[in-house]
Amino acid sequence: MNESKVNEKMEELLALIEKNLYCFFCKNDPKNLYEPIRYLLDAKGKRIRPLLTLISAGILNGDINKAIKPAIALEFLHNFTLVHDDIMDNSDLRRNRETIHKKWNTSIGILSGDLLLAIAFQNIIADVGLDYCKEVLLTYTNSLIEVCEGQGFDLDFEERQDVTINEYFLMIEKKTAKLIENSMVVGGMIANGNIDDIRSLAAIGKSLGLAFQLQDDLLDLTAINPKFGKVVGKDIVEGKKTFIMLKAKEVFTKKEEVDLLDTFFLNHGLSPENVPLMIQYLEQNGIFELTKETINGYFSTIQSHLNKFENNIYKELLNNLVSNILNREY
Amino acid sequence: MNESKVNEKMEELLALIEKNLYCFFCKNDPKNLYEPIRYLLDAKGKRIRPLLTLISAGILNGDINKAIKPAIALEFLHNFTLVHDDIMDNSDLRRNRETIHKKWNTSIGILSGDLLLAIAFQNIIADVGLDYCKEVLLTYTNSLIEVCEGQGFDLDFEERQDVTINEYFLMIEKKTAKLIENSMVVGGMIANGNIDDIRSLAAIGKSLGLAFQLQDDLLDLTAINPKFGKVVGKDIVEGKKTFIMLKAKEVFTKKEEVDLLDTFFLNHGLSPENVPLMIQYLEQNGIFELTKETINGYFSTIQSHLNKFENNIYKELLNNLVSNILNREY
Repeated sequence: MNESKVNEKMEELLALIEKNLYCFFCKNDPKNLYEPIRYLLDAKGKRIRPLLTLISAGILNGDINKAIKPAIALEFLHNFTLVHDDIMDNSDLRRNRETIHKKWNTSIGILSGDLLLAIAFQNIIADVGLDYCKEVLLTYTNSLIEVCEGQGFDLDFEERQDVTINEYFLMIEKKTAKLIENSMVVGGMIANGNIDDIRSLAAIGKSLGLAFQLQDDLLDLTAINPKFGKVVGKDIVEGKKTFIMLKAKEVFTKKEEVDLLDTFFLNHGLSPENVPLMIQYLEQNGIFELTKETINGYFSTIQSHLNKFENNIYKELLNNLVSNILNREY
Repeated sequence: MNESKVNEKMEELLALIEKNLYCFFCKNDPKNLYEPIRYLLDAKGKRIRPLLTLISAGILNGDINKAIKPAIALEFLHNFTLVHDDIMDNSDLRRNRETIHKKWNTSIGILSGDLLLAIAFQNIIADVGLDYCKEVLLTYTNSLIEVCEGQGFDLDFEERQDVTINEYFLMIEKKTAKLIENSMVVGGMIANGNIDDIRSLAAIGKSLGLAFQLQDDLLDLTAINPKFGKVVGKDIVEGKKTFIMLKAKEVFTKKEEVDLLDTFFLNHGLSPENVPLMIQYLEQNGIFELTKETINGYFSTIQSHLNKFENNIYKELLNNLVSNILNREY
């Protein structure tokens, strides 16, 4: 298919999203809540979740316009989690700008997050047709529950030394993958997809979500492009129990490697000067390669499910989007 | 009507509420979120909102059992606001027990509140019939938006010197009254009430909510019963701009009174030793009496709307509940 036509369609969808993102915020009072919400939405994210909803509806030849408000609601839900997570993680920056609780305060962070979520619900409820009202809403609510539970596990893992790889996957399935999965499922539902189609969309979304998270963990240690806006090895300094570090626990055998890894787990992170050595050990033990292979495995799953769908411009778009996400280098 | 029969019915409704309150929490993982939620629900509140939903359905001869899950969802919504408000207000105690963010930490407070809200949505969506799915859900979501906006105004008022009585009413309408109003409206909707009935229920709920808040402000200064569990004059010490203090601003004329009031507004509160003098000024200027009259005005509104409904045990129950709330002395 004509590459420029695909790009054009992508721009069209993104423009549709941006246009619809703000029309729920004509209200201005109380200013102390609506201003932070607009500030948050102004910081252009990649809009991956609403894009996936629209694209999924399009793959099944559904009406994109029927999917736009639920798509926006999913972007709001995602942004809601960002605001609250940033408070819990004590993060100062998000998308290269001050986080809401930092620019205003914690109360405003909590409350503007709550309000954003409320508005998301209002929109999705007001918009969806009665015929699939319930299933779309339950999928939406399920995403919210899973995201909260995933963040709960993440907080719990910070305190624990004995997190397993299975537990890690349970956590990222909930915290990251479920919302991506459900963004696609909602699109499929609105296009009146049959159960097999919906299952394939769910499988694609779940694989994409998991791959996305592993890619994120990997980029933290291997990204070289300064545009990524992160300090390399931040996760190691902060003691994050990522797939990479948990895999290292299974793989490392040499005394000096095991010692450094033990230090990482016992001290909840390493000092920055120890990061290069840890990266060297991870590299030598093939952990990065293994992570890439795992990501490629998800990529294959995505492809096999994608093949079930008839060719159309949205399928092409999804293919591009998946490749862009999984091949990003920063 | 037989008084003991009315009491019996009240016990029956409360038992139905308690029974249904926990069946959504069979899950236990992640423990760090479900444990605080159960802890919160264990601290017996008055369950006014779910009671009002059930009673409203009953007044219109609707099926109480159809209203129970939406009723519970409204109690969850209320509890969600308590957890987040307690963080924002930095409160250590709630219902005489440690608040969640105090007993655990702020992250657990934010997140278990979010999860509680998510579960509330799940239940109300899973349960309500498709025929009124949308209107009940929109009413529910509207409550959430109004509560957030109300709390936003409340936070804003803390910083401002020029809050008017009208603004105060706008704030408590949103923060307190709307959820009580909508608890009744949802009950009416589930009983398939006509538009006039729903409007009367809404008017009763709104008046009850406003009266409840004014009563609360009044009790802070006049309660004598130690069971109230509050220090008398806490609102004055904390600089809360209640109806009483804003009314004083309109009424006070003597220099010493105006001076003390100015100190209150400028310093965001008075020191505890100045509270008795302020109470004396308020008393002398008839502010307490005026507040009671305003509350009685709401009571009359409630009665006139109640008179429109046919007599049944639920109407009796509502009458009792309203009297108990508005005549409470602590």
